[in-house]
Amino acid sequence: MSSVGSDAGDGGHAVLRTKTPGEKASDGPSEVGSGWTRASCPCCVSGPVEPLVLLQLRSGLQQQTKDWIITLIATAVKQGGAALSAHPGEEPSGDIIVVSAPRCTLLRATEELGLCKAYHNGDMTAFSYHDRNNFQNADNVQVFLTVSERQYIVKYELEGMRAQRDLKIPGLPEGLRLQRRDNIWQKLQGAGVVRCMFPLNHEEKLKALSKAWYSGNQLTQPLDMIHEYFGGTVAFYFSFLDFYTWSLLPPAILGLVLTMFSGGVNKEALDSISDSKVAISSGDDDDEALTVSGHMIQAVFSMLWSTVVMEMWKRRKTTLSYRWGTMQLAERFSEPRPSYHGDMGVNPVTGRWEPLFPVWQRKLRMALVSVPMVGLFLGLVVLGMLGFYWGEAQVQTLHTEWDSLLSSALLYLPSVAHIVYTNALGTAYRQVALALTEFENHREESAYGDHLTGKILVFTFFNYFAVLFHIAFYKQDVPLLRKRLASLLIITQLVNQVTEVVIPFLVDRLFSAPKRSEKEEDPEEDKFRNQSNLPDFPGLFAEYIELLVQFGYLSLFSCVYPLTAVLLLLNNLTEIRSDAYKMCKLFKKPFSAPVAGMGVWQTAFEVLSFVSVISNCWLLLLSPRLQELGQENGITGTNALLVAVLLEHLLILFKMLLAILIPDEPDWIRVKREQNEFKSMQALGQQRQGAMDRYFIE
Amino acid sequence: MSSVGSDAGDGGHAVLRTKTPGEKASDGPSEVGSGWTRASCPCCVSGPVEPLVLLQLRSGLQQQTKDWIITLIATAVKQGGAALSAHPGEEPSGDIIVVSAPRCTLLRATEELGLCKAYHNGDMTAFSYHDRNNFQNADNVQVFLTVSERQYIVKYELEGMRAQRDLKIPGLPEGLRLQRRDNIWQKLQGAGVVRCMFPLNHEEKLKALSKAWYSGNQLTQPLDMIHEYFGGTVAFYFSFLDFYTWSLLPPAILGLVLTMFSGGVNKEALDSISDSKVAISSGDDDDEALTVSGHMIQAVFSMLWSTVVMEMWKRRKTTLSYRWGTMQLAERFSEPRPSYHGDMGVNPVTGRWEPLFPVWQRKLRMALVSVPMVGLFLGLVVLGMLGFYWGEAQVQTLHTEWDSLLSSALLYLPSVAHIVYTNALGTAYRQVALALTEFENHREESAYGDHLTGKILVFTFFNYFAVLFHIAFYKQDVPLLRKRLASLLIITQLVNQVTEVVIPFLVDRLFSAPKRSEKEEDPEEDKFRNQSNLPDFPGLFAEYIELLVQFGYLSLFSCVYPLTAVLLLLNNLTEIRSDAYKMCKLFKKPFSAPVAGMGVWQTAFEVLSFVSVISNCWLLLLSPRLQELGQENGITGTNALLVAVLLEHLLILFKMLLAILIPDEPDWIRVKREQNEFKSMQALGQQRQGAMDRYFIE
Repeated sequence: MSSVGSDAGDGGHAVLRTKTPGEKASDGPSEVGSGWTRASCPCCVSGPVEPLVLLQLRSGLQQQTKDWIITLIATAVKQGGAALSAHPGEEPSGDIIVVSAPRCTLLRATEELGLCKAYHNGDMTAFSYHDRNNFQNADNVQVFLTVSERQYIVKYELEGMRAQRDLKIPGLPEGLRLQRRDNIWQKLQGAGVVRCMFPLNHEEKLKALSKAWYSGNQLTQPLDMIHEYFGGTVAFYFSFLDFYTWSLLPPAILGLVLTMFSGGVNKEALDSISDSKVAISSGDDDDEALTVSGHMIQAVFSMLWSTVVMEMWKRRKTTLSYRWGTMQLAERFSEPRPSYHGDMGVNPVTGRWEPLFPVWQRKLRMALVSVPMVGLFLGLVVLGMLGFYWGEAQVQTLHTEWDSLLSSALLYLPSVAHIVYTNALGTAYRQVALALTEFENHREESAYGDHLTGKILVFTFFNYFAVLFHIAFYKQDVPLLRKRLASLLIITQLVNQVTEVVIPFLVDRLFSAPKRSEKEEDPEEDKFRNQSNLPDFPGLFAEYIELLVQFGYLSLFSCVYPLTAVLLLLNNLTEIRSDAYKMCKLFKKPFSAPVAGMGVWQTAFEVLSFVSVISNCWLLLLSPRLQELGQENGITGTNALLVAVLLEHLLILFKMLLAILIPDEPDWIRVKREQNEFKSMQALGQQRQGAMDRYFIE
Repeated sequence: MSSVGSDAGDGGHAVLRTKTPGEKASDGPSEVGSGWTRASCPCCVSGPVEPLVLLQLRSGLQQQTKDWIITLIATAVKQGGAALSAHPGEEPSGDIIVVSAPRCTLLRATEELGLCKAYHNGDMTAFSYHDRNNFQNADNVQVFLTVSERQYIVKYELEGMRAQRDLKIPGLPEGLRLQRRDNIWQKLQGAGVVRCMFPLNHEEKLKALSKAWYSGNQLTQPLDMIHEYFGGTVAFYFSFLDFYTWSLLPPAILGLVLTMFSGGVNKEALDSISDSKVAISSGDDDDEALTVSGHMIQAVFSMLWSTVVMEMWKRRKTTLSYRWGTMQLAERFSEPRPSYHGDMGVNPVTGRWEPLFPVWQRKLRMALVSVPMVGLFLGLVVLGMLGFYWGEAQVQTLHTEWDSLLSSALLYLPSVAHIVYTNALGTAYRQVALALTEFENHREESAYGDHLTGKILVFTFFNYFAVLFHIAFYKQDVPLLRKRLASLLIITQLVNQVTEVVIPFLVDRLFSAPKRSEKEEDPEEDKFRNQSNLPDFPGLFAEYIELLVQFGYLSLFSCVYPLTAVLLLLNNLTEIRSDAYKMCKLFKKPFSAPVAGMGVWQTAFEVLSFVSVISNCWLLLLSPRLQELGQENGITGTNALLVAVLLEHLLILFKMLLAILIPDEPDWIRVKREQNEFKSMQALGQQRQGAMDRYFIE
């Protein structure tokens, strides 16, 4: 073990450099402590220090400001600091600070976040600092906490720092004075003093991960390794992607079988792609009936399938969340988000002094401001679509009248205008959604995230599907719908793969990589700096919405195009790999809060699964073959509609029963949960136990 | 204070008689301890003993058996007894045993049941025996626990007794040998040794309660007193009845206003009652439109009203359940139901040795046996109805052909046959429902009750509404529906009031009361005996189903007959009083388990509120005026149906949003709940805290 780190400001030149090239930081904690600030608690001063997070400061910052920040990071939490270890980098006057965390800070934060860890009996139990010695591996934080948990805790502690009294930051103008209870980090980032903050990559681990993840022909994904390295949000995305992809097998097989057995469907599909009107082969009644019942089977199957998949995923999710210790997250009991505001007061639950904001006021803001605004934008999408159709019709008439070069060029105008309009609307909406969610003033980071994602997702989804719904419900043109769906399925997936992976890959290779010429013997610090050249990770929104849109194609319109599931299955098998490659190579490593699932996406998928019943029943009703059959047997349109409505209600009822009957957690998890509840009920009674027992004979 | 009670078997002649007539047992605890068995713990031997529950034994039971039972009741729980106090009554050889409970047993059971009581800071907190001295009034069980809680605990302890080893009950045949872990009480009741067991009335309290409840013109009900005396199930029923009756005001006022403003509706209603076909007053278009929009307003209002009422009731329920300390009932952690069976094993949650039965097996039994059986019976109801209509048609033709006295007598045959059939079916179903629920093998008493009630309720409801649904959906005859509804509303309510109150009252006065000639100076024991002559309380099923059927009339078909709410409001105002009278005077006092709400009835009301949307939209579509309006404006039947379906979906969506947006618990309760969760989270950590702390410098 090396000696205790010297105080900040003591010029830590040698720190990260003193290592010999063979000694890699990735072998676990760096063994060099010099240059690091001293941890505030005696049990953490000795021992190795591991670089976790890199802060990039504004270049040209005064030395005293940097020193002040380093001192602040190392100060105990009670004195308004973060109780972390900081290192000024190779040059004391440089623009980076490397941050690590001593054991005690990590363990205390683990309790505060409500993470569960393996107890000595093997059960996942909410970690308690007092009881730390009964937890497995609690003396070795490198094993006890995952990399991404350690890095998130650093971020959590930094962002939680609040000024204990009014003070001026040395070297910064008077305007940036801190008031008591001000969030220091928010102020520093707002003033541009801290330019960015990102978790450092761990080369060896990353290499091992990518090897297990996407290099070979793995059929399963190394979910635990992903969770260990990238954290909960990413791990849950890949778990869902994996689960969902495999659950595409049954509908894919059914689709193939139906297509093979009923040549009609096949021909129809081919016809629709080749844009010729579907030639109804009258007289071939057997084939007819086969096709129609194929339609029916496909539709009913896909409706029930979606519920079963989502319920089974919930069970899987609960299992994973138990394994990863995120079943009892205590976010609502910890510090509120930095930008949460309200009248200062005592939190009635935790007894802490913090901003308070009444729940009803938030609900009122959501109901009276957010909902109408979102509605307005959805209306604008519809308006744009109607405008586009109107414009199309106009230029068509113009073109048939004039038939000139100009008019044929004009034919493109509506499309171009619509694309421009949609993009502008999307950009504007993103800003509005951000502002609205901020205005709703959520206390917890996860609630904020869910509401923001929810808003954008509704809009994006609507944008994707407005045209399809228009064709299905208003134009009632099944062949056109089939054509659109097939082209969307094939083209969108291709475009997505290209924009998501190929372009970033090329950009990385052609422009970024040459600047990042890395050598084994480079000093650690340069490697850290290099990571800051990678682009920021854009978040999982695009990945999730892609899955949601897929799921939408499949469940909403599946009876129209039976091969949907096959195409999606093929797409997803490559998608898993390309997403994994992207995560590992093309972006900065993201911070990842501990989460217990997919958040609002879960709801989105479930809602979609119920909406699919309505859409499928409607499409069956529209199905030209079925209509013809009805006419032959003398069923009127009204009666057919009645049957469809009845079917819809029965299916929804059945889906609800399924959702209720399939338990959301496996039995063994339920037992563990109830054990916990029972224990905590007993513990509460015993802890309150007064000193009065001696008055009673037990 | 009197001396410590002597041992059982010591001939307690003087016990209940030693009191002077002026000293009433109802002044709280009886001050006479002699004759009572000695409590097993030293802190409970002195002090007053209060008679709580009366056991009636088989007459002619051997003295040694009675003595054995008394000793058993007084034995400590660990030795397989109930740790209660028993008194053999005036004559040691008589057929009654009076049971009371010492303080320690009551307090321990309070913890076991998970009841919340007022902590020293005023918050309702789950009671803990260890911590008892920090609870308000814990030293005075008469104030600490309500009468009904004390009586329920006696029942709970008696029914929980299990043989600790194989033994023969003295004075009973070999066949009644107890095996280890056998439930003793079940065996005794099964063998007819214990004929019945009921809680004793408390004259003074009962008088005070009836005075505050139904003697005057009270607008509110003394809910806390009801809870204190009759316990949770009864108190929740009356709370709901009260809440629901007041919430009928808005639809009643709307109904009156609509009836006044649109003469058409009024006339229509009158017409329908007088059985003349509705004469459509063509040419009076203003009136037309008014009537139609009146229909619409009424329908939409009643659909949204039902959701708002149920959501507001949930809030009220949570408040009451907090006030009555039943928010954290621990039924799933306590002993299973006596008749629960399965392989013996260690309960993984509580660690107790008890029968185990896998949850999936119960679900399987429910899905594969119970659901099909219930479906079969519902099918038989429909079959009966169809048979009735078929029979009606047959005898009608017969009558027109023959036109004799015989054939006109035959006209009644289908009705009579249908009534006989329905009654036989109902009786058979009740037996089947009992057997099915027993077969499902529920672990908790409340789950058993809910599943049994649920089964009977579905059947009864179906029985009530099958005819109305048949008229509305199959015959599509709105005038007939209106007529039926009006007559049902008026006649059923009248019949109910008569059968529920007047008949029991008369029976009581004419037959039972003379036998019960009670005098002030009668010994206590005779008063106790007299109570056993009252009929058993039949439970709240009939009351609840009456409310549910009312709610069904109102929400399912309200747009047909706008004055429904007015009639129901009037009916309920008398219903409250007659139900209260019935509870207090006409029946034995029932045992009442602590409950947190109405159980399965809550679900029934909520489901009905959603089904009402479907039915109302359908009725609007059928409305003759609306159809005519549609025809005038050239709207086809299919399009009208489409609009109705769209409206239905939108309304259901809106109702779901309402249900989500209105929080189920008031804010202050949420804070209390979260405080509790926070405390128990912290407690769990601190309780686990090992002895290792000394190794660490804090």
